[in-house]
Amino acid sequence: MANNLRIGIVGLGRLGKRHAEALAFRTRHCELVAACSPVADERSYASAQLGITRVYEDFDTFLADPGMDAVVLVTPTSLHADQTIAALKAGKHVFVEKPLALNVEDCERVLAVAQQRPAQVAMVGFVRRFDPSYLNAHAAVAAGEIGRPFLVRSQTCDQNDPEGFFVRFAPTSGGIFMDCSVHDIDLARWMLNRPKALRAFATGTIALHPALAEFGDVDNGLAVVEFEGGARAVFYASRTMAHGHETSTEVIGTAGKLTVGEHAASDRVVRSDTHGVRHAVVKDFYERFEAAFGAEMAAFVAACRGEAPLSLTLDDALEATRIGLAITRSLHSGMPEVV
Amino acid sequence: MANNLRIGIVGLGRLGKRHAEALAFRTRHCELVAACSPVADERSYASAQLGITRVYEDFDTFLADPGMDAVVLVTPTSLHADQTIAALKAGKHVFVEKPLALNVEDCERVLAVAQQRPAQVAMVGFVRRFDPSYLNAHAAVAAGEIGRPFLVRSQTCDQNDPEGFFVRFAPTSGGIFMDCSVHDIDLARWMLNRPKALRAFATGTIALHPALAEFGDVDNGLAVVEFEGGARAVFYASRTMAHGHETSTEVIGTAGKLTVGEHAASDRVVRSDTHGVRHAVVKDFYERFEAAFGAEMAAFVAACRGEAPLSLTLDDALEATRIGLAITRSLHSGMPEVV
Amino acid sequence: MANNLRIGIVGLGRLGKRHAEALAFRTRHCELVAACSPVADERSYASAQLGITRVYEDFDTFLADPGMDAVVLVTPTSLHADQTIAALKAGKHVFVEKPLALNVEDCERVLAVAQQRPAQVAMVGFVRRFDPSYLNAHAAVAAGEIGRPFLVRSQTCDQNDPEGFFVRFAPTSGGIFMDCSVHDIDLARWMLNRPKALRAFATGTIALHPALAEFGDVDNGLAVVEFEGGARAVFYASRTMAHGHETSTEVIGTAGKLTVGEHAASDRVVRSDTHGVRHAVVKDFYERFEAAFGAEMAAFVAACRGEAPLSLTLDDALEATRIGLAITRSLHSGMPEVV
Amino acid sequence: MANNLRIGIVGLGRLGKRHAEALAFRTRHCELVAACSPVADERSYASAQLGITRVYEDFDTFLADPGMDAVVLVTPTSLHADQTIAALKAGKHVFVEKPLALNVEDCERVLAVAQQRPAQVAMVGFVRRFDPSYLNAHAAVAAGEIGRPFLVRSQTCDQNDPEGFFVRFAPTSGGIFMDCSVHDIDLARWMLNRPKALRAFATGTIALHPALAEFGDVDNGLAVVEFEGGARAVFYASRTMAHGHETSTEVIGTAGKLTVGEHAASDRVVRSDTHGVRHAVVKDFYERFEAAFGAEMAAFVAACRGEAPLSLTLDDALEATRIGLAITRSLHSGMPEVV
Repeated sequence: MANNLRIGIVGLGRLGKRHAEALAFRTRHCELVAACSPVADERSYASAQLGITRVYEDFDTFLADPGMDAVVLVTPTSLHADQTIAALKAGKHVFVEKPLALNVEDCERVLAVAQQRPAQVAMVGFVRRFDPSYLNAHAAVAAGEIGRPFLVRSQTCDQNDPEGFFVRFAPTSGGIFMDCSVHDIDLARWMLNRPKALRAFATGTIALHPALAEFGDVDNGLAVVEFEGGARAVFYASRTMAHGHETSTEVIGTAGKLTVGEHAASDRVVRSDTHGVRHAVVKDFYERFEAAFGAEMAAFVAACRGEAPLSLTLDDALEATRIGLAITRSLHSGMPEVV
Repeated sequence: MANNLRIGIVGLGRLGKRHAEALAFRTRHCELVAACSPVADERSYASAQLGITRVYEDFDTFLADPGMDAVVLVTPTSLHADQTIAALKAGKHVFVEKPLALNVEDCERVLAVAQQRPAQVAMVGFVRRFDPSYLNAHAAVAAGEIGRPFLVRSQTCDQNDPEGFFVRFAPTSGGIFMDCSVHDIDLARWMLNRPKALRAFATGTIALHPALAEFGDVDNGLAVVEFEGGARAVFYASRTMAHGHETSTEVIGTAGKLTVGEHAASDRVVRSDTHGVRHAVVKDFYERFEAAFGAEMAAFVAACRGEAPLSLTLDDALEATRIGLAITRSLHSGMPEVV
Repeated sequence: MANNLRIGIVGLGRLGKRHAEALAFRTRHCELVAACSPVADERSYASAQLGITRVYEDFDTFLADPGMDAVVLVTPTSLHADQTIAALKAGKHVFVEKPLALNVEDCERVLAVAQQRPAQVAMVGFVRRFDPSYLNAHAAVAAGEIGRPFLVRSQTCDQNDPEGFFVRFAPTSGGIFMDCSVHDIDLARWMLNRPKALRAFATGTIALHPALAEFGDVDNGLAVVEFEGGARAVFYASRTMAHGHETSTEVIGTAGKLTVGEHAASDRVVRSDTHGVRHAVVKDFYERFEAAFGAEMAAFVAACRGEAPLSLTLDDALEATRIGLAITRSLHSGMPEVV
Repeated sequence: MANNLRIGIVGLGRLGKRHAEALAFRTRHCELVAACSPVADERSYASAQLGITRVYEDFDTFLADPGMDAVVLVTPTSLHADQTIAALKAGKHVFVEKPLALNVEDCERVLAVAQQRPAQVAMVGFVRRFDPSYLNAHAAVAAGEIGRPFLVRSQTCDQNDPEGFFVRFAPTSGGIFMDCSVHDIDLARWMLNRPKALRAFATGTIALHPALAEFGDVDNGLAVVEFEGGARAVFYASRTMAHGHETSTEVIGTAGKLTVGEHAASDRVVRSDTHGVRHAVVKDFYERFEAAFGAEMAAFVAACRGEAPLSLTLDDALEATRIGLAITRSLHSGMPEVV
């Protein structure tokens, strides 16, 4: 217990709460010792539900707490870069939710600071890399089981929210590709062994949420990315699925194909009745990736404690942002954009 | 064309019509030249829809038609044995729908006549043997792909008919096992390479059709059969499925398991909507086995023309009846019965 | 029988033989009365296997045969337009394999002739429209079951031929999109209710067959099409699948999604052994669409006999060619192309 | 933390270790404070890996430890009843692994003691009741989604162990039905709403492990159980699967059917290659039920803390044993046995 990692968390919204509970109750070798939020309710939650005694309203005060080894940032994207930099400079290991930033310059600023502090962990939350199925698929690809991988098709498709909650975030989300496809972009690079992206082309449509038009965003987006050496990727992001959340990825190689996550069954139950033979579907990304969120926190703790290096780097996060931005530019220009 | 097989059909009910149309329009090397039915509407159908000119009301007159090489009997089970014997004695090849008879003595009478006439084909309609999937499964078993097969689990489950049409046939059907499971019994023997059946145990329940009680029948029946040498079979027959007709069979061996027909998809369409991820189900045995019915007729024609011997024998039909009867006795006695 | 449609077939290569056998043996209300091929072996086949007495080497002589109501053209693509026009002018109904032509002008020449002869059927072989699963999916879409369809994702993926047989056809095939994706293009238009195509973007890669580079072709191609009104389509064509032929299509609407043909099971058998739980896959398009090829011929015959109009028009074929050509131009230019 | 449940564990074999780690690291509101094992290695493990300071060799000394609220018994079946009784009499809550005992008398002795101590929890480890899929299925049945359930088909099928490790336990395991099917029996009773079992019939075969014959055991067993009111159950237990561990259950009702666990996919990855389209299979019951084992411990802790009553009772355990014994008698007698 003596050498448990002491963690402080910033941001206790929906996803923040889930990270906090994983850290407080289900992750070994760490203690959640502090929390920070500008929202009173979130601070009350930290005290009452998590039993945290050191709860802060102000980020700088929080960061000055000397009894913390690491911070977990689950804050709005616009704060990611500056908070990560500040935490690194305060000597803390940092976990920050994806995307690292909505522009390349911010990513590069973070990388510059991190490179000066190689003993500190800086990790971006590409949670799918910690999903057992994606890990098994990646291991199979790395072992050569599908020959040379040359094409990834990957989608992030959310169940439609009739109230269009996500529309409110449209002004600051960076658009559907930065918000959703950034995961698929990272997966594609990981599965294809990090080839250099050359060009991107995107298009999209508004199926159900016309209010997005004002922000130049769409609720269904398609993108193609060309990599050096011939590899290709196709991404699909949707906010309007009727059946649930379906995140799936195909990796196609010269000797076979792997498909991860298709049909998104929420359990092992099959129903045979007047609606046919059917299964239920996960409702959102958290239901799909609950185990992965736990494994992600465990990997962060292990890395901070020097037990296991991360294969996921800040450079991966920078490249995902770079590609996501090129895709987004193409959506707006209608033309292929150089990455 | 000169040496096409000339066929006459007896019985043009629902299944009879289907056999007739396959013979008239989709089976090579044969001509449907005559038809026989005591039902006026069926005779009219034969003339008008099939273009048959030699249409008979009386079976004996029909059988005396010299311009026929083979007859196809799609008549009530109680007539099978006598009609088959009469047709064989008239020098015709015979296809008769399953089951061959509801007692062993009738089966043996047919076999005795058939054995005296080895040049004539006598075939019982165990249609599943001609289904491409069952054929592929049998070929895999025969090739040793699952090692030594030692257990078959097989079911015939019909979609519930709220009007209980089948209840009307309960007095003459021989019961659920003779009517439905006789197919599964034949499949089990085929997959297990015809072991000798020793004992049978059965039980059942009435889920939705209390009128069956009067006839000692059930709408859901379970049976276990023990074979010499250790192989076992379990059968399930149901009249009350909500989702459609699901005929499926597992063959379990020392090196693997084959499953045929599970989930009974009616096509290659998957729907993802508020009911989950789902597919439609075949409605009845004919939808499931339409291709097999065609292949069955083609196999009969080929056998009659001396082109390809049948692996399916009258002895198989006798054994299926013998086992089906032991199962039925066990349902009534509540005790294991010697086959 | 008197009013059976009298058909002559031109071209008895692999696909031609299959059409011929369907017409000769399995299609009602027609007779295959004549055949034409410049290849001696194919003519011998027509006489010996199909029993056709009127077998021609020369197309013009064949066309002059007065005892033919319709012709079926299964010839090289470069001949499609001229032969169709000649046959129409000779007063015959025409079925011609896809694609109608490799340029828009040829398509338009055919349309011009056909429009002058409205009493004659002119049909292009988009066989997937006659597949039961695609028909069921289209009926569901038309019935509004998935709301408003706005996105089609469709692929035609062939099993890799290690001998690269198809490479020999690369100089004349029109490229992977004209050869394979033209089916997907037609399906997308059909499912989306024929929106006007605006732009196309394509990319591709050579995974296994470098000899294609010489012809500007690829063995894996990706294309995106933008339609007026917001609908989109994504196509994938591959020559290099390890597992078999997998043609599949998703139609995504505001209230649900339909998927046709995924996983391409070759039968209803599931194997559970040391390789996992698995099923076999169809080997080629003909195994996948065998029933559809039969239904296609039946639909042609029915249309010629005035029994059932075709929903598939020459204008559909023209549009598929127009879109396929824009995709192909984009593959070469690297830029979006106006359709 | 003050009112955390203080738990001591007895037995740290394979399954004991897993329970211990769940309690030590992943279960809230409890502390694993003591351990007991006659095996030195297991005691070392408790100290070194779990950080437990109070480690005992002798069960009575362990039980005398005053700083424990509850004990978890993961000991040989022959000890279950006496240890449970002793622990109850020592005032502890008790979790004991299934089966409660191999005879009815021992079960009844435990029940008698437990009934005198209603404030103490006594729970038997029917882990499947805590599996999310089984819970969802049970909730659907309880909500009437499949109408009236009348038939359960359930199997526990282990991957073959070529070294026949389990054969060594044959003398004390109680046979395949007491060891494996007891879970299925409990599930059937739960899904069917606890009907009274009337009769059982069983048969079996030895497919791969002839050494079992000496103990009257089989490596593949089949059983049928008749319940009062007409419900039926069929069980299958196997030690010889080639593909992995496949535990699955069907619940069939008058308005639909639920299937839990079929095909036993180990993850969400589908491979398409020369072996077909396939997925990997869970290797053993622990891989299949890992989450359920965690939920089971959480449910035990919650019950001990008075937060949530258990639906699983000692009477359920008694009835599962009673039915399992009747099945086992039938295997030996060859006749139906009264439960």
